[in-house]
Amino acid sequence: MDEKESRHTRGDSVGRVSLIGAGPGDPELLTLKAKRRLEEADVVFFDNRVNRSVLAHCPEDVRCVYVGKVPGGRRTSQNVINGLLAKEALQGLRVVRLKGGDPFVFGRGGEEAIHLREQGIHVEVVPGISSCLAAPALAGIPVTHRGLTTHFSVITGMSAIEDRDALAESWRALARSGGTLVVLMGVRRLPEVVDAFVGAGLPAATPAAMVASGGTDDQRVVEGTLDDIVERVRTARIEPPATFVVGEVVHLREGITAESSAGTREQSETRAVERR
Amino acid sequence: MDEKESRHTRGDSVGRVSLIGAGPGDPELLTLKAKRRLEEADVVFFDNRVNRSVLAHCPEDVRCVYVGKVPGGRRTSQNVINGLLAKEALQGLRVVRLKGGDPFVFGRGGEEAIHLREQGIHVEVVPGISSCLAAPALAGIPVTHRGLTTHFSVITGMSAIEDRDALAESWRALARSGGTLVVLMGVRRLPEVVDAFVGAGLPAATPAAMVASGGTDDQRVVEGTLDDIVERVRTARIEPPATFVVGEVVHLREGITAESSAGTREQSETRAVERR
Repeated sequence: MDEKESRHTRGDSVGRVSLIGAGPGDPELLTLKAKRRLEEADVVFFDNRVNRSVLAHCPEDVRCVYVGKVPGGRRTSQNVINGLLAKEALQGLRVVRLKGGDPFVFGRGGEEAIHLREQGIHVEVVPGISSCLAAPALAGIPVTHRGLTTHFSVITGMSAIEDRDALAESWRALARSGGTLVVLMGVRRLPEVVDAFVGAGLPAATPAAMVASGGTDDQRVVEGTLDDIVERVRTARIEPPATFVVGEVVHLREGITAESSAGTREQSETRAVERR
Repeated sequence: MDEKESRHTRGDSVGRVSLIGAGPGDPELLTLKAKRRLEEADVVFFDNRVNRSVLAHCPEDVRCVYVGKVPGGRRTSQNVINGLLAKEALQGLRVVRLKGGDPFVFGRGGEEAIHLREQGIHVEVVPGISSCLAAPALAGIPVTHRGLTTHFSVITGMSAIEDRDALAESWRALARSGGTLVVLMGVRRLPEVVDAFVGAGLPAATPAAMVASGGTDDQRVVEGTLDDIVERVRTARIEPPATFVVGEVVHLREGITAESSAGTREQSETRAVERR
Protein backbone atom coordinates (compact mmCIF):
# COMPACT_ATOMS: atom_id res chain seq x y z
CA MET A 1 0.00 0.00 0.00
CA ASP A 2 1.24 3.45 -0.82
CA GLU A 3 2.08 5.45 2.31
CA LYS A 4 0.02 8.47 1.33
CA GLU A 5 -2.93 6.20 0.80
CA SER A 6 -2.19 4.54 4.09
CA ARG A 7 -2.19 7.80 5.98
CA HIS A 8 -5.06 9.58 4.28
CA THR A 9 -7.62 7.01 3.25
CA ARG A 10 -7.63 4.39 5.96
CA GLY A 11 -10.68 5.12 8.05
CA ASP A 12 -9.61 2.95 10.95
CA SER A 13 -6.12 4.31 11.50
CA VAL A 14 -4.40 7.57 12.23
CA GLY A 15 -0.74 7.56 11.29
CA ARG A 16 1.52 4.60 10.88
CA VAL A 17 4.47 3.11 12.68
CA SER A 18 6.72 0.59 10.95
CA LEU A 19 8.13 -1.76 13.55
CA ILE A 20 11.31 -2.94 11.86
CA GLY A 21 14.02 -5.46 12.64
CA ALA A 22 17.48 -4.24 11.65
CA GLY A 23 19.09 -7.68 11.77
CA PRO A 24 22.03 -8.96 13.78
CA GLY A 25 24.68 -6.34 13.07
CA ASP A 26 25.90 -6.62 9.49
CA PRO A 27 24.21 -3.63 7.81
CA GLU A 28 23.79 -5.73 4.66
CA LEU A 29 21.53 -8.11 6.55
CA LEU A 30 18.86 -5.40 6.52
CA THR A 31 15.87 -6.30 4.32
CA LEU A 32 14.92 -4.39 1.19
CA LYS A 33 11.64 -3.44 2.86
CA ALA A 34 13.40 -2.03 5.91
CA LYS A 35 15.66 0.00 3.64
CA ARG A 36 12.65 1.41 1.79
CA ARG A 37 10.89 2.37 5.01
CA LEU A 38 14.04 4.13 6.23
CA GLU A 39 14.28 6.01 2.92
CA GLU A 40 10.71 7.25 3.41
CA ALA A 41 10.93 7.98 7.13
CA ASP A 42 10.21 11.30 8.82
CA VAL A 43 11.44 10.10 12.19
CA VAL A 44 13.32 6.99 13.35
CA PHE A 45 13.52 5.68 16.91
CA PHE A 46 16.37 3.20 17.33
CA ASP A 47 18.01 0.97 19.94
CA ASN A 48 21.59 0.38 21.03
CA ARG A 49 21.51 -3.00 19.28
CA VAL A 50 21.04 -1.32 15.88
CA ASN A 51 24.11 -0.84 13.68
CA ARG A 52 23.94 2.91 13.16
CA SER A 53 25.30 2.72 9.64
CA VAL A 54 21.86 1.57 8.46
CA LEU A 55 20.55 5.04 9.35
CA ALA A 56 22.44 6.27 6.28
CA HIS A 57 19.47 5.03 4.23
CA CYS A 58 17.29 7.78 5.75
CA PRO A 59 16.61 11.09 3.98
CA GLU A 60 18.77 14.04 4.98
CA ASP A 61 16.08 15.80 6.96
CA VAL A 62 15.09 12.75 9.02
CA ARG A 63 15.12 12.91 12.80
CA CYS A 64 16.89 9.91 14.37
CA VAL A 65 16.17 9.46 18.05
CA TYR A 66 18.15 7.09 20.25
CA VAL A 67 15.91 5.31 22.76
CA GLY A 68 18.22 2.43 23.62
CA LYS A 69 18.80 0.89 26.97
CA VAL A 70 22.30 0.66 28.36
CA PRO A 71 22.61 -2.47 30.51
CA GLY A 72 23.13 -1.34 34.08
CA GLY A 73 22.90 2.29 33.04
CA ARG A 74 20.30 4.88 32.13
CA ARG A 75 17.40 3.63 30.08
CA THR A 76 14.46 5.07 28.26
CA SER A 77 11.39 3.51 29.86
CA GLN A 78 9.03 1.51 27.67
CA ASN A 79 6.22 3.92 28.56
CA VAL A 80 8.23 6.88 27.34
CA ILE A 81 9.07 5.07 24.07
CA ASN A 82 5.41 4.14 23.56
CA GLY A 83 4.41 7.76 24.11
CA LEU A 84 7.01 9.13 21.71
CA LEU A 85 6.03 6.72 18.93
CA ALA A 86 2.33 7.51 19.31
CA LYS A 87 2.86 11.26 19.43
CA GLU A 88 4.77 11.36 16.15
CA ALA A 89 2.44 8.93 14.39
CA LEU A 90 -0.65 10.88 15.45
CA GLN A 91 0.85 13.93 13.74
CA GLY A 92 0.76 11.97 10.50
CA LEU A 93 4.50 11.44 10.30
CA ARG A 94 6.09 8.34 8.85
CA VAL A 95 7.52 6.75 11.96
CA VAL A 96 10.07 3.94 11.94
CA ARG A 97 10.78 2.00 15.11
CA LEU A 98 14.06 0.21 14.44
CA LYS A 99 15.21 -2.63 16.69
CA GLY A 100 18.23 -4.92 16.57
CA GLY A 101 17.48 -8.43 15.30
CA ASP A 102 13.74 -9.10 15.02
CA PRO A 103 11.23 -6.90 16.86
CA PHE A 104 9.23 -9.88 18.15
CA VAL A 105 12.14 -11.98 19.48
CA PHE A 106 12.73 -10.63 22.98
CA GLY A 107 12.40 -7.17 21.46
CA ARG A 108 9.22 -6.00 23.23
CA GLY A 109 7.79 -5.21 19.83
CA GLY A 110 4.48 -6.72 20.88
CA GLU A 111 4.12 -4.24 23.71
CA GLU A 112 4.73 -1.30 21.42
CA ALA A 113 2.40 -2.63 18.74
CA ILE A 114 -0.46 -3.15 21.21
CA HIS A 115 -0.02 0.32 22.69
CA LEU A 116 -0.09 1.94 19.25
CA ARG A 117 -3.09 -0.05 18.01
CA GLU A 118 -5.02 0.98 21.11
CA GLN A 119 -4.74 4.54 19.87
CA GLY A 120 -5.91 3.64 16.38
CA ILE A 121 -2.43 3.89 14.91
CA HIS A 122 -1.67 1.49 12.06
CA VAL A 123 1.26 -0.78 12.86
CA GLU A 124 3.29 -2.47 10.16
CA VAL A 125 5.64 -5.26 11.19
CA VAL A 126 8.79 -5.78 9.12
CA PRO A 127 10.60 -8.88 10.42
CA GLY A 128 14.37 -8.77 10.73
CA ILE A 129 17.06 -11.42 10.79
CA SER A 130 17.18 -12.61 14.40
CA SER A 131 20.57 -13.29 15.93
CA CYS A 132 19.09 -16.43 17.50
CA LEU A 133 19.46 -18.03 14.05
CA ALA A 134 21.97 -15.76 12.33
CA ALA A 135 24.70 -15.70 14.98
CA PRO A 136 25.04 -19.51 14.98
CA ALA A 137 24.70 -19.61 11.15
CA LEU A 138 27.40 -17.00 10.63
CA ALA A 139 29.65 -19.03 12.93
CA GLY A 140 29.02 -22.09 10.76
CA ILE A 141 26.48 -23.73 13.08
CA PRO A 142 23.10 -24.72 11.58
CA VAL A 143 20.45 -24.88 14.33
CA THR A 144 18.87 -27.86 12.56
CA HIS A 145 20.57 -30.69 10.68
CA ARG A 146 19.03 -33.84 9.27
CA GLY A 147 19.90 -36.83 11.40
CA LEU A 148 21.04 -34.69 14.33
CA THR A 149 18.01 -32.68 15.40
CA THR A 150 14.47 -32.01 14.31
CA HIS A 151 13.90 -28.98 16.55
CA PHE A 152 15.49 -26.12 18.40
CA SER A 153 14.52 -23.87 21.29
CA VAL A 154 15.37 -20.24 21.91
CA ILE A 155 15.64 -18.91 25.45
CA THR A 156 16.55 -15.59 27.00
CA GLY A 157 19.11 -15.47 29.77
CA MET A 158 17.98 -11.99 30.79
CA SER A 159 14.75 -12.70 32.64
CA ALA A 160 16.04 -11.51 35.98
CA ILE A 161 12.62 -10.14 36.83
CA GLU A 162 10.88 -13.47 36.26
CA ASP A 163 10.54 -16.23 38.81
CA ARG A 164 14.01 -17.80 38.74
CA ASP A 165 12.83 -21.23 39.82
CA ALA A 166 10.17 -21.35 37.12
CA LEU A 167 12.71 -20.15 34.58
CA ALA A 168 15.23 -22.83 35.51
CA GLU A 169 12.45 -25.44 35.33
CA SER A 170 11.61 -24.39 31.76
CA TRP A 171 15.32 -24.46 30.85
CA ARG A 172 15.42 -28.04 32.16
CA ALA A 173 12.32 -29.04 30.19
CA LEU A 174 13.85 -27.65 27.00
CA ALA A 175 17.15 -29.42 27.68
CA ARG A 176 15.28 -32.72 27.99
CA SER A 177 13.72 -32.22 24.55
CA GLY A 178 16.90 -33.35 22.81
CA GLY A 179 17.01 -30.41 20.36
CA THR A 180 19.43 -27.58 19.77
CA LEU A 181 19.32 -24.93 22.52
CA VAL A 182 19.97 -21.28 21.75
CA VAL A 183 20.30 -18.79 24.58
CA LEU A 184 20.19 -15.08 23.81
CA MET A 185 21.58 -12.56 26.30
CA GLY A 186 23.07 -15.41 28.29
CA VAL A 187 26.62 -14.24 29.00
CA ARG A 188 26.00 -12.93 32.52
CA ARG A 189 23.97 -15.92 33.67
CA LEU A 190 25.91 -18.58 31.76
CA PRO A 191 26.84 -20.65 34.84
CA GLU A 192 23.16 -20.84 35.88
CA VAL A 193 22.05 -21.79 32.37
CA VAL A 194 24.69 -24.50 32.05
CA ASP A 195 23.81 -25.85 35.52
CA ALA A 196 20.16 -26.12 34.49
CA PHE A 197 21.05 -27.98 31.29
CA VAL A 198 23.38 -30.40 33.07
CA GLY A 199 20.85 -30.80 35.88
CA ALA A 200 18.27 -31.81 33.27
CA GLY A 201 20.49 -34.66 32.20
CA LEU A 202 22.51 -33.26 29.29
CA PRO A 203 25.94 -34.94 29.25
CA ALA A 204 28.86 -32.75 30.29
CA ALA A 205 30.44 -33.56 26.92
CA THR A 206 27.59 -31.91 24.99
CA PRO A 207 29.13 -29.47 22.47
CA ALA A 208 28.53 -25.78 23.18
CA ALA A 209 29.61 -22.51 21.59
CA MET A 210 29.36 -18.84 22.44
CA VAL A 211 29.12 -16.51 19.43
CA ALA A 212 29.85 -12.91 20.38
CA SER A 213 28.93 -9.96 18.16
CA GLY A 214 27.62 -12.38 15.52
CA GLY A 215 27.39 -10.90 12.06
CA THR A 216 29.76 -8.02 12.77
CA ASP A 217 33.45 -7.52 12.03
CA ASP A 218 34.07 -8.21 15.72
CA GLN A 219 32.50 -11.67 15.65
CA ARG A 220 34.23 -14.10 18.01
CA VAL A 221 33.44 -17.74 18.64
CA VAL A 222 34.39 -19.81 21.66
CA GLU A 223 33.79 -23.55 21.37
CA GLY A 224 33.78 -26.15 24.09
CA THR A 225 31.47 -28.50 25.96
CA LEU A 226 28.99 -27.95 28.78
CA ASP A 227 31.81 -29.06 31.05
CA ASP A 228 34.26 -26.31 30.14
CA ILE A 229 32.36 -23.61 28.26
CA VAL A 230 31.85 -21.39 31.32
CA GLU A 231 35.59 -21.32 31.95
CA ARG A 232 36.42 -20.85 28.26
CA VAL A 233 33.99 -17.94 27.91
CA ARG A 234 35.41 -16.36 31.06
CA THR A 235 39.01 -16.78 29.85
CA ALA A 236 38.13 -15.32 26.46
CA ARG A 237 36.50 -12.36 28.24
CA ILE A 238 33.38 -12.54 26.09
CA GLU A 239 31.07 -9.58 26.60
CA PRO A 240 27.41 -9.19 25.56
CA PRO A 241 25.83 -9.29 23.06
CA ALA A 242 26.47 -12.97 22.50
CA THR A 243 24.49 -16.03 21.48
CA PHE A 244 25.02 -19.36 23.23
CA VAL A 245 24.37 -22.59 21.31
CA VAL A 246 24.23 -26.08 22.76
CA GLY A 247 23.89 -29.35 20.87
CA GLU A 248 25.54 -31.76 18.48
CA VAL A 249 25.14 -29.22 15.66
CA VAL A 250 28.03 -27.24 17.17
CA HIS A 251 30.39 -29.93 15.84
CA LEU A 252 29.26 -29.19 12.27
CA ARG A 253 31.13 -25.90 12.44
CA GLU A 254 34.36 -27.69 11.74
CA GLY A 255 33.07 -28.94 8.41
CA ILE A 256 31.29 -25.75 7.42
CA THR A 257 33.61 -22.85 8.17
CA ALA A 258 36.99 -22.39 6.58
CA GLU A 259 38.11 -20.92 9.87
CA SER A 260 37.66 -23.87 12.14
CA SER A 261 38.56 -26.46 9.51
CA ALA A 262 41.94 -24.73 9.31
CA GLY A 263 42.66 -25.08 13.00
CA THR A 264 41.78 -26.71 16.26
CA ARG A 265 39.18 -25.47 18.66
CA GLU A 266 41.87 -24.05 20.90
CA GLN A 267 43.55 -22.15 18.08
CA SER A 268 40.22 -20.73 17.12
CA GLU A 269 39.66 -19.56 20.65
CA THR A 270 43.15 -18.08 20.93
CA ARG A 271 42.68 -16.16 17.72
CA ALA A 272 39.46 -14.81 19.11
CA VAL A 273 41.21 -13.61 22.23
CA GLU A 274 44.00 -12.05 20.23
CA ARG A 275 41.54 -10.04 18.20
CA ARG A 276 40.45 -8.07 21.25
CA MET B 1 35.87 -9.59 0.68
CA ASP B 2 35.84 -8.73 -2.97
CA GLU B 3 34.70 -11.64 -5.14
CA LYS B 4 37.65 -11.49 -7.52
CA GLU B 5 39.94 -11.61 -4.56
CA SER B 6 37.93 -14.47 -3.17
CA ARG B 7 38.26 -16.49 -6.33
CA HIS B 8 41.82 -15.74 -7.30
CA THR B 9 43.84 -15.18 -4.16
CA ARG B 10 42.46 -17.55 -1.52
CA GLY B 11 44.96 -20.35 -1.34
CA ASP B 12 42.66 -22.70 0.54
CA SER B 13 39.57 -22.45 -1.65
CA VAL B 14 38.56 -22.99 -5.23
CA GLY B 15 35.39 -21.19 -6.19
CA ARG B 16 32.66 -19.92 -3.94
CA VAL B 17 29.06 -20.78 -3.24
CA SER B 18 26.82 -18.29 -1.47
CA LEU B 19 24.22 -20.20 0.51
CA ILE B 20 21.42 -17.66 0.74
CA GLY B 21 18.05 -17.46 2.46
CA ALA B 22 15.41 -15.77 0.33
CA GLY B 23 13.03 -15.15 3.21
CA PRO B 24 9.41 -16.21 3.72
CA GLY B 25 7.80 -15.13 0.45
CA ASP B 26 7.55 -11.33 0.29
CA PRO B 27 10.34 -10.45 -2.19
CA GLU B 28 11.05 -7.30 -0.15
CA LEU B 29 12.04 -9.47 2.81
CA LEU B 30 15.21 -10.36 0.93
CA THR B 31 18.36 -8.93 2.51
CA LEU B 32 20.57 -6.34 0.84
CA LYS B 33 23.41 -8.87 0.85
CA ALA B 34 21.30 -11.51 -0.88
CA LYS B 35 20.33 -8.95 -3.51
CA ARG B 36 23.98 -8.07 -4.11
CA ARG B 37 24.99 -11.70 -4.47
CA LEU B 38 22.16 -12.26 -6.98
CA GLU B 39 23.32 -9.20 -8.94
CA GLU B 40 26.80 -10.70 -9.17
CA ALA B 41 25.78 -14.29 -9.83
CA ASP B 42 26.82 -16.43 -12.79
CA VAL B 43 24.47 -19.25 -11.86
CA VAL B 44 21.63 -19.57 -9.32
CA PHE B 45 20.17 -22.83 -7.99
CA PHE B 46 16.78 -22.26 -6.38
CA ASP B 47 13.99 -24.15 -4.59
CA ASN B 48 10.24 -24.25 -4.98
CA ARG B 49 9.91 -22.22 -1.74
CA VAL B 50 11.69 -19.24 -3.32
CA ASN B 51 9.56 -16.40 -4.68
CA ARG B 52 10.80 -16.32 -8.27
CA SER B 53 10.43 -12.58 -8.55
CA VAL B 54 13.66 -12.18 -6.56
CA LEU B 55 15.51 -13.72 -9.51
CA ALA B 56 14.89 -10.41 -11.29
CA HIS B 57 17.90 -9.06 -9.37
CA CYS B 58 20.19 -11.34 -11.40
CA PRO B 59 22.14 -10.15 -14.43
CA GLU B 60 20.61 -10.85 -17.85
CA ASP B 61 23.02 -13.63 -18.74
CA VAL B 62 22.62 -15.54 -15.48
CA ARG B 63 21.60 -19.19 -15.53
CA CYS B 64 18.78 -19.94 -13.08
CA VAL B 65 18.34 -23.64 -12.34
CA TYR B 66 15.31 -24.99 -10.52
CA VAL B 67 16.28 -27.81 -8.14
CA GLY B 68 13.17 -27.76 -5.96
CA LYS B 69 11.36 -30.70 -4.56
CA VAL B 70 7.69 -31.15 -5.25
CA PRO B 71 6.01 -32.86 -2.28
CA GLY B 72 4.83 -36.25 -3.48
CA GLY B 73 6.25 -35.65 -6.93
CA ARG B 74 9.58 -35.68 -8.71
CA ARG B 75 12.49 -34.33 -6.78
CA THR B 76 16.09 -33.45 -7.36
CA SER B 77 18.11 -35.60 -4.98
CA GLN B 78 20.38 -33.90 -2.48
CA ASN B 79 23.37 -35.70 -4.03
CA VAL B 80 22.58 -34.31 -7.45
CA ILE B 81 22.22 -30.78 -6.02
CA ASN B 82 25.53 -31.12 -4.15
CA GLY B 83 27.21 -32.25 -7.36
CA LEU B 84 25.78 -29.42 -9.45
CA LEU B 85 26.85 -26.76 -6.94
CA ALA B 86 30.38 -28.14 -6.71
CA LYS B 87 30.80 -28.51 -10.46
CA GLU B 88 29.93 -24.88 -11.17
CA ALA B 89 31.95 -23.52 -8.25
CA LEU B 90 35.04 -25.51 -9.27
CA GLN B 91 34.86 -23.81 -12.67
CA GLY B 92 35.34 -20.51 -10.86
CA LEU B 93 31.78 -19.31 -11.34
CA ARG B 94 29.91 -17.21 -8.83
CA VAL B 95 27.35 -19.67 -7.58
CA VAL B 96 24.27 -18.72 -5.55
CA ARG B 97 22.28 -21.43 -3.80
CA LEU B 98 18.95 -19.76 -2.94
CA LYS B 99 16.55 -21.36 -0.46
CA GLY B 100 13.21 -20.25 0.93
CA GLY B 101 13.36 -18.86 4.47
CA ASP B 102 16.74 -19.47 6.09
CA PRO B 103 19.14 -22.10 4.70
CA PHE B 104 19.91 -23.53 8.16
CA VAL B 105 16.32 -23.87 9.43
CA PHE B 106 15.17 -27.25 8.09
CA GLY B 107 16.77 -26.20 4.80
CA ARG B 108 19.53 -28.81 4.58
CA GLY B 109 21.98 -25.97 4.09
CA GLY B 110 24.39 -27.67 6.47
CA GLU B 111 24.58 -30.75 4.27
CA GLU B 112 25.37 -28.69 1.20
CA ALA B 113 27.93 -26.55 3.01
CA ILE B 114 29.79 -29.59 4.37
CA HIS B 115 29.84 -31.26 0.96
CA LEU B 116 31.25 -28.13 -0.70
CA ARG B 117 33.86 -27.49 1.98
CA GLU B 118 35.09 -31.06 1.61
CA GLN B 119 36.06 -30.16 -1.94
CA GLY B 120 37.85 -27.01 -0.86
CA ILE B 121 35.08 -24.73 -2.08
CA HIS B 122 34.54 -21.56 -0.08
CA VAL B 123 31.03 -21.36 1.37
CA GLU B 124 29.45 -18.08 2.38
CA VAL B 125 26.28 -18.21 4.49
CA VAL B 126 23.78 -15.36 4.07
CA PRO B 127 20.97 -15.86 6.61
CA GLY B 128 17.41 -15.22 5.50
CA ILE B 129 14.21 -14.32 7.32
CA SER B 130 12.84 -17.66 8.54
CA SER B 131 9.11 -18.22 8.33
CA CYS B 132 9.27 -19.77 11.81
CA LEU B 133 9.45 -16.21 13.14
CA ALA B 134 8.15 -14.16 10.24
CA ALA B 135 4.91 -16.03 9.52
CA PRO B 136 3.64 -15.55 13.09
CA ALA B 137 4.95 -11.95 13.17
CA LEU B 138 3.23 -11.03 9.92
CA ALA B 139 0.02 -12.48 11.34
CA GLY B 140 0.41 -10.24 14.40
CA ILE B 141 1.74 -12.95 16.72
CA PRO B 142 5.04 -12.26 18.53
CA VAL B 143 6.73 -15.55 19.49
CA THR B 144 7.92 -13.94 22.72
CA HIS B 145 6.13 -11.44 24.93
CA ARG B 146 7.15 -10.14 28.33
CA GLY B 147 5.03 -11.68 31.05
CA LEU B 148 3.72 -14.43 28.77
CA THR B 149 6.76 -16.42 27.69
CA THR B 150 10.54 -16.32 27.95
CA HIS B 151 11.21 -18.93 25.26
CA PHE B 152 9.95 -20.60 22.13
CA SER B 153 10.63 -23.84 20.30
CA VAL B 154 10.59 -24.59 16.60
CA ILE B 155 9.72 -28.04 15.34
CA THR B 156 9.29 -29.63 11.94
CA GLY B 157 6.20 -31.69 11.24
CA MET B 158 7.83 -33.27 8.19
CA SER B 159 10.17 -35.79 9.77
CA ALA B 160 8.43 -38.84 8.38
CA ILE B 161 11.76 -40.61 8.03
CA GLU B 162 12.62 -40.17 11.70
CA ASP B 163 11.55 -42.45 14.49
CA ARG B 164 7.96 -41.33 15.07
CA ASP B 165 7.89 -42.33 18.73
CA ALA B 166 11.07 -40.40 19.47
CA LEU B 167 9.68 -37.44 17.57
CA ALA B 168 6.42 -37.44 19.51
CA GLU B 169 8.40 -37.69 22.76
CA SER B 170 10.39 -34.57 21.88
CA TRP B 171 7.16 -32.76 20.94
CA ARG B 172 5.83 -33.66 24.38
CA ALA B 173 8.99 -32.44 26.12
CA LEU B 174 8.78 -29.13 24.29
CA ALA B 175 5.09 -28.79 25.12
CA ARG B 176 5.91 -29.22 28.82
CA SER B 177 8.41 -26.35 28.66
CA GLY B 178 5.64 -23.77 28.84
CA GLY B 179 6.91 -21.68 25.92
CA THR B 180 5.53 -20.78 22.52
CA LEU B 181 5.57 -23.70 20.08
CA VAL B 182 6.09 -23.16 16.36
CA VAL B 183 5.64 -26.06 13.95
CA LEU B 184 6.89 -25.71 10.39
CA MET B 185 5.55 -28.00 7.67
CA GLY B 186 2.91 -29.29 10.06
CA VAL B 187 -0.29 -29.19 8.00
CA ARG B 188 -0.34 -32.85 7.01
CA ARG B 189 0.50 -34.18 10.47
CA LEU B 190 -1.45 -31.58 12.46
CA PRO B 191 -3.65 -34.11 14.30
CA GLU B 192 -0.56 -36.01 15.49
CA VAL B 193 1.18 -32.82 16.59
CA VAL B 194 -1.88 -31.58 18.49
CA ASP B 195 -2.32 -35.00 20.14
CA ALA B 196 1.28 -34.90 21.35
CA PHE B 197 0.85 -31.41 22.79
CA VAL B 198 -2.41 -32.30 24.57
CA GLY B 199 -0.91 -35.62 25.71
CA ALA B 200 1.94 -33.64 27.29
CA GLY B 201 -0.55 -31.76 29.42
CA LEU B 202 -1.29 -28.60 27.44
CA PRO B 203 -4.91 -27.54 28.15
CA ALA B 204 -7.34 -28.03 25.28
CA ALA B 205 -8.11 -24.32 25.54
CA THR B 206 -4.53 -23.31 24.65
CA PRO B 207 -4.68 -20.76 21.81
CA ALA B 208 -3.39 -21.96 18.44
CA ALA B 209 -3.15 -20.48 14.95
CA MET B 210 -2.22 -21.72 11.51
CA VAL B 211 -0.62 -19.12 9.25
CA ALA B 212 -0.64 -20.20 5.60
CA SER B 213 1.54 -18.58 2.94
CA GLY B 214 2.85 -16.12 5.53
CA GLY B 215 4.38 -13.00 4.07
CA THR B 216 2.71 -13.37 0.69
CA ASP B 217 -0.41 -11.79 -0.79
CA ASP B 218 -2.16 -15.11 -0.18
CA GLN B 219 -1.53 -15.10 3.56
CA ARG B 220 -4.38 -16.69 5.53
CA VAL B 221 -4.73 -17.14 9.26
CA VAL B 222 -6.94 -19.62 11.07
CA GLU B 223 -7.24 -19.11 14.83
CA GLY B 224 -8.62 -21.49 17.41
CA THR B 225 -7.55 -23.63 20.34
CA LEU B 226 -5.86 -27.02 20.57
CA ASP B 227 -9.37 -28.39 20.95
CA ASP B 228 -10.72 -27.17 17.63
CA ILE B 229 -7.78 -26.10 15.47
CA VAL B 230 -7.56 -29.39 13.56
CA GLU B 231 -11.19 -29.08 12.51
CA ARG B 232 -10.85 -25.36 11.72
CA VAL B 233 -7.78 -25.91 9.57
CA ARG B 234 -9.53 -28.73 7.76
CA THR B 235 -12.66 -26.63 7.17
CA ALA B 236 -10.57 -23.73 5.88
CA ARG B 237 -8.78 -26.15 3.53
CA ILE B 238 -5.36 -24.85 4.47
CA GLU B 239 -2.60 -26.20 2.25
CA PRO B 240 1.17 -26.16 2.82
CA PRO B 241 3.27 -24.14 3.27
CA ALA B 242 1.91 -23.08 6.63
CA THR B 243 3.27 -22.30 10.09
CA PHE B 244 1.47 -23.53 13.20
CA VAL B 245 1.78 -21.51 16.42
CA VAL B 246 0.65 -22.60 19.88
CA GLY B 247 0.66 -20.53 23.06
CA GLU B 248 -0.85 -17.58 24.87
CA VAL B 249 0.93 -15.22 22.45
CA VAL B 250 -1.67 -16.14 19.80
CA HIS B 251 -4.17 -14.00 21.74
CA LEU B 252 -1.99 -10.92 21.20
CA ARG B 253 -2.94 -10.97 17.54
CA GLU B 254 -6.22 -9.31 18.38
CA GLY B 255 -4.43 -6.28 19.84
CA ILE B 256 -1.71 -6.09 17.20
CA THR B 257 -3.36 -6.52 13.81
CA ALA B 258 -5.98 -4.20 12.45
CA GLU B 259 -7.55 -7.22 10.83
CA SER B 260 -8.46 -9.23 13.86
CA SER B 261 -9.23 -6.23 16.07
CA ALA B 262 -11.92 -5.39 13.55
CA GLY B 263 -13.66 -8.73 13.87
CA THR B 264 -14.03 -11.89 15.85
CA ARG B 265 -11.95 -14.97 15.42
CA GLU B 266 -14.73 -16.61 13.46
CA GLN B 267 -15.11 -13.67 11.10
CA SER B 268 -11.40 -13.68 10.54
CA GLU B 269 -11.53 -17.33 9.65
CA THR B 270 -14.50 -16.88 7.36
CA ARG B 271 -12.75 -14.08 5.54
CA ALA B 272 -9.80 -16.36 5.07
CA VAL B 273 -11.98 -19.04 3.57
CA GLU B 274 -13.70 -16.57 1.30
CA ARG B 275 -10.38 -15.44 -0.10
CA ARG B 276 -9.76 -18.82 -1.65
